[in-house]
Amino acid sequence: MSTVAPSQDPYATHARLLNVFEEALRKHIAGWETWPALLRESCAYALGTGGKRVRPVVCLMAAEACGAPLSAALPFALAVELIHTYSLVHDDLPSMDDDDFRRGQPTCHKKFGEAQAILTGDALLTEAFAVLGAAQAPAAQVALLATAAGGGGMVGGQVLDIDTAPVPDCDALEHLHRLKTGALLRAAVLGGGLAAGANADAQAALSRYGAALGLLFQITDDLLDASQDADAGNRSYLNHLDADTLRARGETVAAEAGDAARSLGAGGEAMALFADAIRTRKS
Amino acid sequence: MSTVAPSQDPYATHARLLNVFEEALRKHIAGWETWPALLRESCAYALGTGGKRVRPVVCLMAAEACGAPLSAALPFALAVELIHTYSLVHDDLPSMDDDDFRRGQPTCHKKFGEAQAILTGDALLTEAFAVLGAAQAPAAQVALLATAAGGGGMVGGQVLDIDTAPVPDCDALEHLHRLKTGALLRAAVLGGGLAAGANADAQAALSRYGAALGLLFQITDDLLDASQDADAGNRSYLNHLDADTLRARGETVAAEAGDAARSLGAGGEAMALFADAIRTRKS
Repeated sequence: MSTVAPSQDPYATHARLLNVFEEALRKHIAGWETWPALLRESCAYALGTGGKRVRPVVCLMAAEACGAPLSAALPFALAVELIHTYSLVHDDLPSMDDDDFRRGQPTCHKKFGEAQAILTGDALLTEAFAVLGAAQAPAAQVALLATAAGGGGMVGGQVLDIDTAPVPDCDALEHLHRLKTGALLRAAVLGGGLAAGANADAQAALSRYGAALGLLFQITDDLLDASQDADAGNRSYLNHLDADTLRARGETVAAEAGDAARSLGAGGEAMALFADAIRTRKS
Repeated sequence: MSTVAPSQDPYATHARLLNVFEEALRKHIAGWETWPALLRESCAYALGTGGKRVRPVVCLMAAEACGAPLSAALPFALAVELIHTYSLVHDDLPSMDDDDFRRGQPTCHKKFGEAQAILTGDALLTEAFAVLGAAQAPAAQVALLATAAGGGGMVGGQVLDIDTAPVPDCDALEHLHRLKTGALLRAAVLGGGLAAGANADAQAALSRYGAALGLLFQITDDLLDASQDADAGNRSYLNHLDADTLRARGETVAAEAGDAARSLGAGGEAMALFADAIRTRKS
């Protein structure tokens, strides 16, 4: 077994970037003094329920791989996590997935009531763009994030997902996931590159990596759900493919992500290993 | 009675700018081909239910008063109306105001269901920033809009508004309205100025005008509600002031708006008259 240098250990990289991100998030939340106290509390609650912070971390990884200081990409990383968090708050609502718990804690509407949860999501979504504006982010970052999160991206995917009709085939399912989860993950990666001033070749590689990562996430989710007998409704790849085929597909996609990341040079190695860590994750 | 030149007739100015805006809005909606059809439909429905389009129109008026072509301010005008529309869709939801009709049409959730209405609002809010990003709007416009619409602005005001505790006094009520409706109106006016490259003096005048306009709107609403015996709960100025005092306050505020607008030069006359038209409106 080969020794992995600290900078190439995906868990160490993740932990380091996670620390940087959590510190920036804490500072950012502390700046909400002019907000009504209840809204500050509900937004902080939604943001604070842990999680791996995959989107901001891959955003920071991409910036680092492109040779930028982390500070350049922190606004985009924050913005992406604010958007991801709002989407969870709204997805959990009674009229949507009607979930009572998320990561072992009461969901936002169980704790603060439905109206407050809707407004919490609205505030988090709006704040994502306040962060970019305050950081004087170029319009390309605003366009990237809004396009990925909006009607042609994440929200569009959620509209497809709440449709009660069964998903007809694997292509339709992939389209749904590409919008619902893939678009924001890809934007997270690309945003890190934009913040780093990556050239067109690097942007293309980041786009490939981000798209593969989104797909990989979903494949692994579906395999994990099946192994835990979770009910994935008709939204699982396993309704269309058997587990071995899906596992093989995961390997192909992880290899694609790895190739794309390594094309960025030595700095992409952590990203390649991170993709493989996602493929082999157990939860 | 003095003759009013066409350019100084506030209704003619409003009608002209409304036409320009509606045309731009139609074109913009036509660009949503990549969105799921149902989301396109629900977003267009929410945007299409008429209304005076006060926010985009004052945005365009401000740009014109500062000597810019309307095209410079159209992205901001669109973005503001997208935000305003999303806020109506979410405010109407069962867990909020639970309204079945808006301007004589079924509200978005009555027509499309609650989950779809939440997502419609989310898509419209996100699209506001997609518009600014695609138009390469400077970060100052993004920051202005997001700050006005977010937790320290419109969403914060809505959080205060759904609080069931009575509003203690006139100052608290004014704070609520300044956040809930004033912040976005002020941003609409200031955004038109920003798009026009207004200097600091003009920005200050626009800020005063926008703040006065927001206040004036609420004062007139409360006076109209009282004359129509509508129930304004404990959110009416008339719980704290008698009608004559409130009417006099409206006159003072309209005069303030007029002074601020006229300080912009001849181009501000239409804005001054528009403020007075809002003071004397009958619906």
